[in-house]
Amino acid sequence: MGVVVPLEEKSTGIERLNGLVAEAMAGVNKTILARTGSDVAMIPEVANHLISSGGKRLRPMLTLATAGLCGYTGEGHIKLAASVEFMHTATLLHDDVVDESDMRRGKLAARMLWGNEASVLVGDFLLGQAFKMMVEVGSLQCLDVLSSAAAVIAEGEVMQLSAAKDTQTSEDAYLEVIRAKTAALFAAACEVGPILAGRAKADVEACRGYGANLGIAFQLIDDALDYGGSAAKLGKNVGDDFREGKVTLPVILSYRRGTAEERDFWKRAIEQNESGDAELERALGLMNRYGAIGDTIGRARHFGEIARDALAPLKGSPQKSALLEVIDFCIERAN
Amino acid sequence: MGVVVPLEEKSTGIERLNGLVAEAMAGVNKTILARTGSDVAMIPEVANHLISSGGKRLRPMLTLATAGLCGYTGEGHIKLAASVEFMHTATLLHDDVVDESDMRRGKLAARMLWGNEASVLVGDFLLGQAFKMMVEVGSLQCLDVLSSAAAVIAEGEVMQLSAAKDTQTSEDAYLEVIRAKTAALFAAACEVGPILAGRAKADVEACRGYGANLGIAFQLIDDALDYGGSAAKLGKNVGDDFREGKVTLPVILSYRRGTAEERDFWKRAIEQNESGDAELERALGLMNRYGAIGDTIGRARHFGEIARDALAPLKGSPQKSALLEVIDFCIERAN
Repeated sequence: MGVVVPLEEKSTGIERLNGLVAEAMAGVNKTILARTGSDVAMIPEVANHLISSGGKRLRPMLTLATAGLCGYTGEGHIKLAASVEFMHTATLLHDDVVDESDMRRGKLAARMLWGNEASVLVGDFLLGQAFKMMVEVGSLQCLDVLSSAAAVIAEGEVMQLSAAKDTQTSEDAYLEVIRAKTAALFAAACEVGPILAGRAKADVEACRGYGANLGIAFQLIDDALDYGGSAAKLGKNVGDDFREGKVTLPVILSYRRGTAEERDFWKRAIEQNESGDAELERALGLMNRYGAIGDTIGRARHFGEIARDALAPLKGSPQKSALLEVIDFCIERAN
Repeated sequence: MGVVVPLEEKSTGIERLNGLVAEAMAGVNKTILARTGSDVAMIPEVANHLISSGGKRLRPMLTLATAGLCGYTGEGHIKLAASVEFMHTATLLHDDVVDESDMRRGKLAARMLWGNEASVLVGDFLLGQAFKMMVEVGSLQCLDVLSSAAAVIAEGEVMQLSAAKDTQTSEDAYLEVIRAKTAALFAAACEVGPILAGRAKADVEACRGYGANLGIAFQLIDDALDYGGSAAKLGKNVGDDFREGKVTLPVILSYRRGTAEERDFWKRAIEQNESGDAELERALGLMNRYGAIGDTIGRARHFGEIARDALAPLKGSPQKSALLEVIDFCIERAN
């Protein structure tokens, strides 16, 4: 029996979620440590550098919470949650090589400390361990969901690479990229719990839909935050996407709404790397003029609403309340 | 009923193997083409560049032949053989980034044409597709074998990276590296066929043992060929490993058997990149003096013999004869 918690209760970030999954999360952390152990010293070094550098572990928490929501009482969700985090970490390691990033989560990127080689290979190692754990859990349906996600994520990354630095990227094309590179893993993370619990197709679909739409919202907010969030002003970590010439929704909207002269500015900035401090200032000014950040957050809210409605058919429980709060938490970060 | 073919028959390379698996191999090639298709144009471009550039497809052939040897009559071996080739191709793509290679199989390496990014991401895409196909086949035991191999290969690659440019690497440590980075995939490629066929543990072990030892022999011969094979002389593609500072068995043996002055030479060459044409000439001379290439080939023969004996308990068949000929084929390449 789920405990009914009023949904109108004030949103409290992800503390409720943290509390609900704390015990299982300890198991996930133990598994992550055990599975990054290796006689090859570089593997735990690189893996722990990234894993311990304070990601929120949002994806594995979603796996644990949706399993709980669906009444799963076994142990398989622990290994699947760890697999999801390994897949995510492997993607970050490979992304740093692709983006030639210097920093990751406020620390030097692994590739700066150990080289591109280590980032590529330790990423491969984590992917291998992720699949091993999935196989150990033994659900072919979960294996299908997670291996399909891995293939879609990789395809999304290549898609993004192909579309890189193209200011004419349409909003639809951009959404297709983030559906693949971000939302697919959120969706899979939320789908395996109900599958393990043996829930009906509609419930599995409900959780998957929640995850997929939350993932899109999460990424759009990340894009907005990269320009300082709703204030769209200079500050710490503002403008990384701009300097790397990444075409995200704030740029797409500003470009499409701008004058011919402004479009030339965006082309020079994104396509020809004229993206110094003065250009960033101008970019932020244009984003404010055209409401590009506010509308990016608005688009995120839209997907947040879809995520909320996806879960609506499932009966109330602490997990459900916590998962709904996560939507607000993801979106309110931008304010 | 297997057809008994006299084992003394003259070895004819891999033509017999090619003929036996030709029909199934057509299915593998079709699968490979279908699974590298994508709306993202870069994926088929990069994948086909490498896949069509004329590797021997030895690994998928081994999967098909061991499945045939064990009397498997289904279709699952086709997808598993394609998975094995994708895993191998992904490793090559990632290796090129790690080694900063300019060439691969006599063509420009993919990373030179499309950049490191594409090599990393298309490799990830192929790995994702490989796991999807394995899941479709639906054998958890095969999934276990192949996902464990993926983890071991990645660990072996990191191990090699950690030990790179260390002339004091022992022969045992080197064997450990190639067991992981090369032999593990050969072993897995040979193990999944008998599993699909539902054969007893001893038969599965026989095929795995054949593959593992063949893989070690194959790698050692590759190492010898990189210095021109038994003649150990300058020629096309000779010395790539030397110029990249790779510590392979010919170097390990020459270093250990050399004088203090010669060891200094090896240290400068491998550890400090003093590896021009004059140094390569001297390296070849030292290898000849100490019989390092001949003994590397001798070590390969040893593992070839173990591979032969691994298959001995299985009754005679065209597949068995073909698989035994593969051992000779792999080793005779060096002469």
